[in-house]
Amino acid sequence: MLTIYSDEHHLHYGQSELNDGELMPCFECPARADNVLAAVRELGIGDIVAPRDFGRDPLARVHSEAFLSFLENAWPMWQAEGRDCDALPLIWPVRGLRQVEPPGIDGKLGFFSMDAGTPITAGTWQAVTTGANVCLTGAASLVDGERSAFALSRPPGHHASSDCMGGYCYLNNAAIAAQFLRDNGAGHIAIVDVDYHHGNGTQSIFYERDDVLFLSIHADPVQEFPYFLGFADETGAGAGRGFNGNYPLPWGTEAPAWFAALGDCLERVESFAPDAIVVSLGVDTFKDDPISQFRLQHADYLKVGESFAQSGRPVLFILEGGYAVDDIGINVANVLRGFHENQ
Amino acid sequence: MLTIYSDEHHLHYGQSELNDGELMPCFECPARADNVLAAVRELGIGDIVAPRDFGRDPLARVHSEAFLSFLENAWPMWQAEGRDCDALPLIWPVRGLRQVEPPGIDGKLGFFSMDAGTPITAGTWQAVTTGANVCLTGAASLVDGERSAFALSRPPGHHASSDCMGGYCYLNNAAIAAQFLRDNGAGHIAIVDVDYHHGNGTQSIFYERDDVLFLSIHADPVQEFPYFLGFADETGAGAGRGFNGNYPLPWGTEAPAWFAALGDCLERVESFAPDAIVVSLGVDTFKDDPISQFRLQHADYLKVGESFAQSGRPVLFILEGGYAVDDIGINVANVLRGFHENQ
Repeated sequence: MLTIYSDEHHLHYGQSELNDGELMPCFECPARADNVLAAVRELGIGDIVAPRDFGRDPLARVHSEAFLSFLENAWPMWQAEGRDCDALPLIWPVRGLRQVEPPGIDGKLGFFSMDAGTPITAGTWQAVTTGANVCLTGAASLVDGERSAFALSRPPGHHASSDCMGGYCYLNNAAIAAQFLRDNGAGHIAIVDVDYHHGNGTQSIFYERDDVLFLSIHADPVQEFPYFLGFADETGAGAGRGFNGNYPLPWGTEAPAWFAALGDCLERVESFAPDAIVVSLGVDTFKDDPISQFRLQHADYLKVGESFAQSGRPVLFILEGGYAVDDIGINVANVLRGFHENQ
Repeated sequence: MLTIYSDEHHLHYGQSELNDGELMPCFECPARADNVLAAVRELGIGDIVAPRDFGRDPLARVHSEAFLSFLENAWPMWQAEGRDCDALPLIWPVRGLRQVEPPGIDGKLGFFSMDAGTPITAGTWQAVTTGANVCLTGAASLVDGERSAFALSRPPGHHASSDCMGGYCYLNNAAIAAQFLRDNGAGHIAIVDVDYHHGNGTQSIFYERDDVLFLSIHADPVQEFPYFLGFADETGAGAGRGFNGNYPLPWGTEAPAWFAALGDCLERVESFAPDAIVVSLGVDTFKDDPISQFRLQHADYLKVGESFAQSGRPVLFILEGGYAVDDIGINVANVLRGFHENQ
């Protein structure tokens, strides 16, 4: 299996996120991808290659131009105000407020975000565009006939909607990759999001479409971030009705219940008969994840990979969350190994 | 002129707000009201009395029961999660997310707020309900025939909408007082908001009503918090069309332009012929305010008071913003003195 990777993810290194009422060191840190890279190298299931540059067009297929322009210019605008800490918003346009993009950076930060855990740093734009290229390179390899690929990108992407960053996410890598596959010959794509958190951004992007099936297994938003999306009754709208499926599970969920949900997902994928599957691969379902409450074990991730292999369809794995930094490598590698040994 | 005051404002003492990408000490601090109290005592224009308790009903005339219940229970819920720092939200239900009140405290904090600058502390509920009682006691004195009163309350209120805290505000004191006046015989009330920031909460509460005229002179939201409300084209809706007036002014505004706006406001008030005027009295229009960009001087505040006195109508002054702590006393006292000497 091809792995695509670039060291440029290091250029995004947020210092602090607002959590539990305090600014604390970002859980989403470069060591995550470094440790995954080391584990994938050790696994030795295929080449590790650098991404190609796909330019801005594939990003603009998923994100608004205003949002891309904001992401690109936010840091210089922030710095021009004489500030050198991470850029964080201070107000958000909630209900009752107008939905108009402000001209200044403080207003823009709030307008294009949903939380205070997604800092913009000097290297964020370069890191996230490179990350998208990592995923696009993986998608392109499927277009070229590969049966699988692993896009080792960070920061993650599945919380980012067409015009909002949030939850450590800036560009929605899974959505960008799925759209690229659609634009290059695939008639139907399934996205299966196994990250601990609901992929609210991906859901929103495809919510009214019947060509991209989105399925997500995650902590119940009644208990967990992002709180305001990811409920079971969100089944799609318009042409997309029936093409969105959420599997909210309670804190403390262990392997049997989790795999039951995955089995259901994969049956729905089979009925949908997609040309390829994009997997939003978060491993924050792990029992020791510092901000999560599911209880999967190292060995369970082998079975995750095996389950996707059994679909027999081309699969693009994209790295999303997973914050148990010492364990993220083995967990991701186990998914890839489980897939590789059973395809 | 009667002043109403309670020491219980000290029970609300936030430690930190998110600003410029960092958590910094709250600008909205107990010393503000302490210094205003000292200046009013020195001014000696009337008694300083304690508030009466008006119970929950007058609050519920303006705020949703769900919001009041949240404010009352937020700190115990936060503490029950093992946290003892100020309670701050971490995600907000922006566009694309569902508007459903979550059961847990982290979700509720986001659901009922618009920023990360409005911490809930152990004493917040008691302080803000006492603050509302301070304002209601002032309103009641007008009902009883007084020509003016000064509600020396904190924290401020004008950014709070029917169900959102924000901008250091929890309960909308001006709206609560105006509604109380309406419920006790007044046919029409004008609210004139001279705080440096737009009174987005007050505007929202009365936006579709023609019995409460809301006029606000403030920094242009194009440049300034709250960014997403306070534009000149917001003139009211439905029955309220024409009963909302915004005077956004640019950073650097000095007395001549500011008083031109006030003059226009007071002409509109005169045409409206209200039974009383509620003044949202922020003095963060002062030239040395640490978070504001207007340039009024100490002496200008005498003229503010004089302008309201010339209306000849009953006036309830309610303290809102003003963060130049060493100057807030003289500025507020000058407003009251200007009013007192010209009524």
